[in-house]
Amino acid sequence: MKTYYFDYNATTPLAPEVRAAMEPFLTEHFGNPSSLHTPGKQAARAVREARKKTALFLGASHENEIVFTSGGTESNNTAIRSALATCPDKNEIVTSAVEHSSVYRVFRQLEKEGYKIHWLKVDRQGGLNLAQLDEVLSERTALVSIMTANNETGVVFPAFKIAEKVRALGILFHVDAVQSVGKIPIHLKNSSVDFLSLSAHKFYGPKGMGALYVRQGTPFRSLILGGAQERGRRAGTENVAGIVGLGAACERVLHEMEAESGRLLRLRDLFESRLQEKIPDILINALGAERLPNTSNVQFKNADGEALLFALDQKGVYASNGSACMSGSREPSRVLKALGLSDEEANTSLRFSFGRLTTEADIEEGAELLSETVRRIREIPLENQHIHA
Amino acid sequence: MKTYYFDYNATTPLAPEVRAAMEPFLTEHFGNPSSLHTPGKQAARAVREARKKTALFLGASHENEIVFTSGGTESNNTAIRSALATCPDKNEIVTSAVEHSSVYRVFRQLEKEGYKIHWLKVDRQGGLNLAQLDEVLSERTALVSIMTANNETGVVFPAFKIAEKVRALGILFHVDAVQSVGKIPIHLKNSSVDFLSLSAHKFYGPKGMGALYVRQGTPFRSLILGGAQERGRRAGTENVAGIVGLGAACERVLHEMEAESGRLLRLRDLFESRLQEKIPDILINALGAERLPNTSNVQFKNADGEALLFALDQKGVYASNGSACMSGSREPSRVLKALGLSDEEANTSLRFSFGRLTTEADIEEGAELLSETVRRIREIPLENQHIHA
Repeated sequence: MKTYYFDYNATTPLAPEVRAAMEPFLTEHFGNPSSLHTPGKQAARAVREARKKTALFLGASHENEIVFTSGGTESNNTAIRSALATCPDKNEIVTSAVEHSSVYRVFRQLEKEGYKIHWLKVDRQGGLNLAQLDEVLSERTALVSIMTANNETGVVFPAFKIAEKVRALGILFHVDAVQSVGKIPIHLKNSSVDFLSLSAHKFYGPKGMGALYVRQGTPFRSLILGGAQERGRRAGTENVAGIVGLGAACERVLHEMEAESGRLLRLRDLFESRLQEKIPDILINALGAERLPNTSNVQFKNADGEALLFALDQKGVYASNGSACMSGSREPSRVLKALGLSDEEANTSLRFSFGRLTTEADIEEGAELLSETVRRIREIPLENQHIHA
Repeated sequence: MKTYYFDYNATTPLAPEVRAAMEPFLTEHFGNPSSLHTPGKQAARAVREARKKTALFLGASHENEIVFTSGGTESNNTAIRSALATCPDKNEIVTSAVEHSSVYRVFRQLEKEGYKIHWLKVDRQGGLNLAQLDEVLSERTALVSIMTANNETGVVFPAFKIAEKVRALGILFHVDAVQSVGKIPIHLKNSSVDFLSLSAHKFYGPKGMGALYVRQGTPFRSLILGGAQERGRRAGTENVAGIVGLGAACERVLHEMEAESGRLLRLRDLFESRLQEKIPDILINALGAERLPNTSNVQFKNADGEALLFALDQKGVYASNGSACMSGSREPSRVLKALGLSDEEANTSLRFSFGRLTTEADIEEGAELLSETVRRIREIPLENQHIHA
C-alpha cells in the first residue's frame, strides 16, 4: 500500500546526507571527545565542525554560542531555568497561551513555585495580542519566552521583533524555534535574542539531539551538571553521532531551505484548495494568519478527529490531531482552544504537515483519500464516530 | 599502524548487533512514538521492547521502573534532584569522596544551596569508610548516593549492601552504576536501591543514551518537563534509535557478561604481571581492593602521566589519565588524591581499561610498547617531561 506521511511537524526522516555523515561515528570513530588520545581528538574535531555548521546556519556571532543538548525539550527547560536562576530578584514571566508543552509545563510548574506568569492571548487566527505584551512588561519581568511558529496551527509569531522591544528593557528573551527551524530563515547575529532552542529531528536530523543558542554575554546556569563538556554548560559525554547529524542537517537545510519552502507552500496551498473543492463544511484554522509553508490545520465539521485519524491510518494517510506530545489524551487541543475554538471544533480538527518527500501526486491522492474518508465518517452521527473508529 | 585501545572505561565502540538493531530506526522507521498512526505505533513498540530488555537485564520488577534519559549524567542529576524535591524537610546527603563528576558537581552545587554533604572517605586502597557512614546517617539524611565501582581505579563498592542499611532507615538510596554495568551483575528486584543510573556507551551501546531505574513506589520529580513521554517522567521526543540501541546492548551483555568478565580479568592480570616484570618502580593503585575485571590504574614513578599519554598515543596505545570527563585540566585526579596519593603520585598514574576487542596479543604488545615508552620518558627529568611530550 502506498502511504502518505503528512506529519512532518511531529518528526522527519533522517536525510540520507545526514545519515551518511553520522555513519563513521557509529562505527570506527567511536572515541570520547574528552579523551586526550587520537580517537578522542578525532571525535572532538567532529563535534567542533558540527558546532561551526550549526552556528553558521543560525547566523550566530560565534560557534561557542551553541550548546548541544538532547533535544528541543531540554533546550527549552535549560533556557528558562537558566534565565530565572540568573535573575533571582525578578519573579514575573511573559509567554504566549499557545507555547509547546516543553515551555508550557515548565511555566505551570513555576507558577507553583511562586512565579507570576503572564499568558499572552491569541486571536481567532492565532495571532498574538501585542498590546497585552506592552501592558505586562515591567521591571519585575525576568524572562519573555515566545515561539517562532506554532507546531499545531503553523502560525508564525513576530518573535524577533518582540525580542527587540524586550531587550531594550533589559529583559532576557528566549525563543522556541523548534518548529520553524529549516522552514523560515534565522539570523541571530544582529537579533536581540538571548536564547534560541532547536531540535534536530524536526529538520531531517536525528532524534535525541538539539541545541540551545546562548548569546555571548548572556548569563548562564547549567541544568545538567558534571563533566566540563560544552565549556561547562552541559555535562555528559557528547552524543557524537547525533551532534554530527545535527551539523549535517544544518548544512543541508541552509542550502535547500529557500527553494524547498517555496515548493512546500505551493503543495500546501494545493492541498487546501483540493480539500475546499472536494469536502463541504470544512474550515482551515488560522487561514488568515502568516503560517509556516508546510502546515495545514483543518476543521472537518461533524467528523471526529480521532475517528478520522484512525480511518486515514487504515488508508496509509498519516496525520495528527493536536500536538504529538499531548496525544494519547482525549483532551481537546489546548492550542486550538486558545484560538477560541469550542471543544467540538477542536476535536474535529486535524493537522497535516508536509516535507521534503511529499510530492504533488501525494497531495492529490491524499486529498482524495481524505475526501472519501470524511464522507464515510460523516455518515455516522458525530457522537458515535469515536466508537466505530 | 596497529592501535591499542585501552580506554574502554571512557567509551566503547557500538557492538555490531547494537548497530544492526538501531539501523531501521535511522532509516525507514522514523515515526514519533507519540503519534497515533502506524509509523508512530511502530516506534512506540520498539521503545516498549527496549524497555523490557533493559528491565530484564537489570532484574527490575517491572519495565515501567525504567526511564530513558540522554545518558548517565542526566540520570545522576535527575535522581539526586528528584530525591531532594520529594524530601523537602531533610537537608543532608551522604556520598563518597570519589564519585563521578556528574554526582560530585551536583553535590558541590547543593552545598551552595544550603545542603550539608557528608563525603565518605576512602582508604589508600580506595575502600570506603563504612564506619563513617554509620556515624553520619540521621533523620536529617535525604539521600545516600554511592557508585557501584569507580571509573578511575575500578574499585568496587558494596553499594547494594549499603542500600539495605540505608533503606531500613527510610532514606532514599541512589546508585551510580555507570561504570560497572555490563561488567558485574545487577539484580534490582530484591535490592534496596531506589534509583540506579546507567549509560549505554559504557557497554557497547550508543552515546547520548542512558536510563534511570526508579523503584516502583519511590516518589519521583522530573528534571525535564514537557510532553507526556516516559509516563510523564522525562519529557522530549524519544531518541528511538538510541533507545533501541540501549535495549540491544542490554540484551547482548546479559548473555556475554559472565564469560567476558572472566576473560577480561585474565587479560588485566596478565597486563599487570607484564608491567611488573618489564618496568621498574611502578605501583598498581588500589591493587588490594576488589576491582572491576577490566581496569588497571598504574603509577609510573618519575614518569609524567600526560607526557606518557602523548608518547603512547604516538605509538597507537590509547590510555587515560584521570577521568575523561575531567581531562583538559592539569589538576591531579581528584579520585587518586582522595586515596591519599600526592600530586606527583597522581600525576604519574595512568588508567588502562580493556574490553571486548582486546586480545592477549594486544596486551603483550601494549605492555612492551608501554615499557619502552616509560624507559624513554624517564631519561628526561620529571619536571621537563611535560615540555618534551
